[in-house]
Amino acid sequence: MEIGFIGIGAMGECMVRNLLKAGHQVSVFNRTRARAELLAADGAHIANSIEGAASNPVVITMLANDESTAATVFESGFLAALPAGGVHVCMATISAELAARLAENHHAAGQAYVSAPVFGRPPAAAAAQLFIAAAGKADALTRCQPLFDAMGQRTFHLGESPEAANVVKIAGNFMIASLIETFGEACALTRNYGIEAAQFLDVMTNSIFPAPIYKIYGGLIADERFQPPGFTLRLGLKDIRLALAAADDKEIALPLASLIRDNYLKAITRGDEALDWAALALVAQEDAGLARRS
Amino acid sequence: MEIGFIGIGAMGECMVRNLLKAGHQVSVFNRTRARAELLAADGAHIANSIEGAASNPVVITMLANDESTAATVFESGFLAALPAGGVHVCMATISAELAARLAENHHAAGQAYVSAPVFGRPPAAAAAQLFIAAAGKADALTRCQPLFDAMGQRTFHLGESPEAANVVKIAGNFMIASLIETFGEACALTRNYGIEAAQFLDVMTNSIFPAPIYKIYGGLIADERFQPPGFTLRLGLKDIRLALAAADDKEIALPLASLIRDNYLKAITRGDEALDWAALALVAQEDAGLARRS
Amino acid sequence: MEIGFIGIGAMGECMVRNLLKAGHQVSVFNRTRARAELLAADGAHIANSIEGAASNPVVITMLANDESTAATVFESGFLAALPAGGVHVCMATISAELAARLAENHHAAGQAYVSAPVFGRPPAAAAAQLFIAAAGKADALTRCQPLFDAMGQRTFHLGESPEAANVVKIAGNFMIASLIETFGEACALTRNYGIEAAQFLDVMTNSIFPAPIYKIYGGLIADERFQPPGFTLRLGLKDIRLALAAADDKEIALPLASLIRDNYLKAITRGDEALDWAALALVAQEDAGLARRS
Amino acid sequence: MEIGFIGIGAMGECMVRNLLKAGHQVSVFNRTRARAELLAADGAHIANSIEGAASNPVVITMLANDESTAATVFESGFLAALPAGGVHVCMATISAELAARLAENHHAAGQAYVSAPVFGRPPAAAAAQLFIAAAGKADALTRCQPLFDAMGQRTFHLGESPEAANVVKIAGNFMIASLIETFGEACALTRNYGIEAAQFLDVMTNSIFPAPIYKIYGGLIADERFQPPGFTLRLGLKDIRLALAAADDKEIALPLASLIRDNYLKAITRGDEALDWAALALVAQEDAGLARRS
Repeated sequence: MEIGFIGIGAMGECMVRNLLKAGHQVSVFNRTRARAELLAADGAHIANSIEGAASNPVVITMLANDESTAATVFESGFLAALPAGGVHVCMATISAELAARLAENHHAAGQAYVSAPVFGRPPAAAAAQLFIAAAGKADALTRCQPLFDAMGQRTFHLGESPEAANVVKIAGNFMIASLIETFGEACALTRNYGIEAAQFLDVMTNSIFPAPIYKIYGGLIADERFQPPGFTLRLGLKDIRLALAAADDKEIALPLASLIRDNYLKAITRGDEALDWAALALVAQEDAGLARRS
Repeated sequence: MEIGFIGIGAMGECMVRNLLKAGHQVSVFNRTRARAELLAADGAHIANSIEGAASNPVVITMLANDESTAATVFESGFLAALPAGGVHVCMATISAELAARLAENHHAAGQAYVSAPVFGRPPAAAAAQLFIAAAGKADALTRCQPLFDAMGQRTFHLGESPEAANVVKIAGNFMIASLIETFGEACALTRNYGIEAAQFLDVMTNSIFPAPIYKIYGGLIADERFQPPGFTLRLGLKDIRLALAAADDKEIALPLASLIRDNYLKAITRGDEALDWAALALVAQEDAGLARRS
Repeated sequence: MEIGFIGIGAMGECMVRNLLKAGHQVSVFNRTRARAELLAADGAHIANSIEGAASNPVVITMLANDESTAATVFESGFLAALPAGGVHVCMATISAELAARLAENHHAAGQAYVSAPVFGRPPAAAAAQLFIAAAGKADALTRCQPLFDAMGQRTFHLGESPEAANVVKIAGNFMIASLIETFGEACALTRNYGIEAAQFLDVMTNSIFPAPIYKIYGGLIADERFQPPGFTLRLGLKDIRLALAAADDKEIALPLASLIRDNYLKAITRGDEALDWAALALVAQEDAGLARRS
Repeated sequence: MEIGFIGIGAMGECMVRNLLKAGHQVSVFNRTRARAELLAADGAHIANSIEGAASNPVVITMLANDESTAATVFESGFLAALPAGGVHVCMATISAELAARLAENHHAAGQAYVSAPVFGRPPAAAAAQLFIAAAGKADALTRCQPLFDAMGQRTFHLGESPEAANVVKIAGNFMIASLIETFGEACALTRNYGIEAAQFLDVMTNSIFPAPIYKIYGGLIADERFQPPGFTLRLGLKDIRLALAAADDKEIALPLASLIRDNYLKAITRGDEALDWAALALVAQEDAGLARRS
């Protein structure tokens, strides 16, 4: 399939390679051109402009946030360049509100819009092991499925309303952030009773929480191994804000998400924005009198 | 080994059976004698009094809470009946404070005290698959190990200070309660965007949270299957109070535990104390305008 | 002085009457023209357009929120109509962010911008007893002072940065919302011990809290007199969101403001958005099992 | 009237002087005898034991907390020494639970019990300007009224159930603590926008919050004048714990009280227990990146 791909970060780079491996022709664009050119050797075509990449029947965007996605689609010729009947697949973690706005504008232009955010870090992206939460018109999802198959291990279809997929992704990240906060507070308690975080983690992950995600995040916290970040604390704050914004649009309260947001802000005030988002656990531990390792 | 066992609830019954199967001689006592007598056919000796059960070299207590444990040990002749050099093993979920007090009193009487709370529900107890968090003097732990092996799949040694084991157990239950609150809020959000709880659970447990504990509690919440309770909401409140009490003794804050405690209290005000503790999830969902199933 | 006044709500109407009484010539505009015409008998000139009212040396806006203020200034010819050297005085409760944006745009157009939000309800506005928190360039404030003197009992100068005045206003409303939440929780407690809210209020306001604001809000809560609203719960939610947005712009946490925001959202879910914002107190009381009066 | 008075702290000393001035005969006891002897010159009789002071028809206790009050009454001969028909008036801030227990025991001994906690600091006690919240049997209250008149400016009668008076006192202290937390967060916000705390306080107390209590606590916070403490942060923590305990006994949630409790604990972890309880405001401000004055 001929596709465009805009946004060649750590995730995008891996995803494009898997699309190329599966035999698709990919025209890539990245604001910092050098990152796009990394993919030329793998067979990617390097587009000179957003319009160039967007003039394909299916175009994937994988940009950092709402601002860059909106700027790309609404202010850089993307909307005009995408052919009638074309599909824009946004795989980044964006707000439910922007997803709804993208859907509206693409439909008005005779195009389709699919939200397909992913669960997984760069190693999973490299191994084509992402989980993809996809929502949009059924025929558009059908057209995209071969692409999803090339990048992920499983696709979940979440109906015709694109923002539903974004909200599922946002809720998933809220669940991880909550796990981090929980482990941070649990360790604040047990460490005050003489149990090291690593020992507590050992008990938990070998008994009632034998899940990789507990081992991964628990390990980061127990070792205070927050650099290099797999996903920065600032991005964690971005995502919990997305959860609260999605809740606010429906005028519902998420008290635990509020607590986590407030603790992320405290972590940022302490200067930890560039650490892994698991460093949220330091807030509870420091508030409980436990110094971080130097 | 000759042992006493006091407290024949749903858990205690299974635990005694496994001790008998492993060849130990068990003298059981239960306030409601009929429950103890259930075990006679399996070979248990039915003691007529707490003193009777307590006059063994190792005595296990598995009572409902701090009050019943303290009443049994301090006000019913247990302390005097336990032989010098005997070991009291408390396997119930009690407070760190009571554990410390038990240790002190037993040591003063020339006896040993071991805290050995368990992770697992009655089916796990029946299958001798409990996880045991044990702490106390090394030689006492060594003497108890054959008993732990008969009841559980793995024992974690947490040092010489008995209350450390209680705090680990309490922290583990806090982590489960947090998982319930988190899933309740996440569903409050996604359901407001048209995603059923079961569908959200399917995505989560087949992607980033492929852990039995998410399937179990997520399933209870998605189906609103809160009766019969595996562990009541009132007991959930008891345990989160233990977490806050343990933190308060060290004068540290656990803001998420405070939030959960408050939501358990709201659930009790709504009349849900006899439901499964997973019904905590209803608070977030009802506050978000989602009616419970009739 | 010749002035324009845009936004003739319950507050604006009183404020214009006091400006007219003080001898100023006021050209008024309101989207619903009939409300503006109420002031013709008092000597106001009724402008036919936003531009008409805005073409005065000093123009006051007193609109409902950020959206209406931004639409008026940026999308309706206001900016072009205001003369060079003219002053726009925004006396509504708007966000710090919008205030900064207004200042920037007016300065670019060779105009001045003053934020001058007020404390006081319509009766205080009618009696020219408002408190005015004003910030902006010193000469612009000096020019406005006679107008402030006509409408209020005291003006506080808060420096050259207009958004400082908005943040003070927002923080003041946060303090009132907190007082409401506090009284709601205190009554939830005392009522559960057999003390009626009116009795508790009597003790408090005749001992350590002998302040009108406690009598006013305490009285509304004790009597559950939430209709007609002096200030709606929806507006209360709007203002606590402004506090959190102002904090978020500086990336700081306000945990109590988060708690209040969440409780306002719960109140809205319960259908109370049109009640007085003091009805926030019902959330704590209902969560504590105390039914509202029918 | 012949009375006993046990507990000669900063408050008790002033209260006894006013009782003596009003012509009452007062037998005083204090654990540290030297403090009691300070009152000999004013005409007080110095008792040699708790029993000595307690063998009067009316006995007032003004001890530090639940522990010292319970030890005095239940473990030091007080109950036996108080004559049949005698009245024990506890004027300290104790828990609702202890008040109920005292009432029960005194009634069983044919004695009366009155809870009469006070609002006011030592200067108010010295000037006989305390506010007294009193509850107990009507005839006992009537007997005590001349004493209350000698010590306070006004007595509020809160019914026959003594613990109601304690809960009103506890709720009042919760309201002050909430005012402190609120002002702390409001200043965290406004200071981040360039408004000094003193300036913000000036606006608030000269507009919508013209109450002495705002001036007093706002002034302490604006000046960061936390030493010497009028009431220590540790006592503030004690009192918010009493509020949560009273709520817990009725199984109701007070989320704002939970938040304040957690912040008091964080303040204690930071080493501020001996500062004035207004130093709670430092938690919000430091979490928002604002350093305390050296």
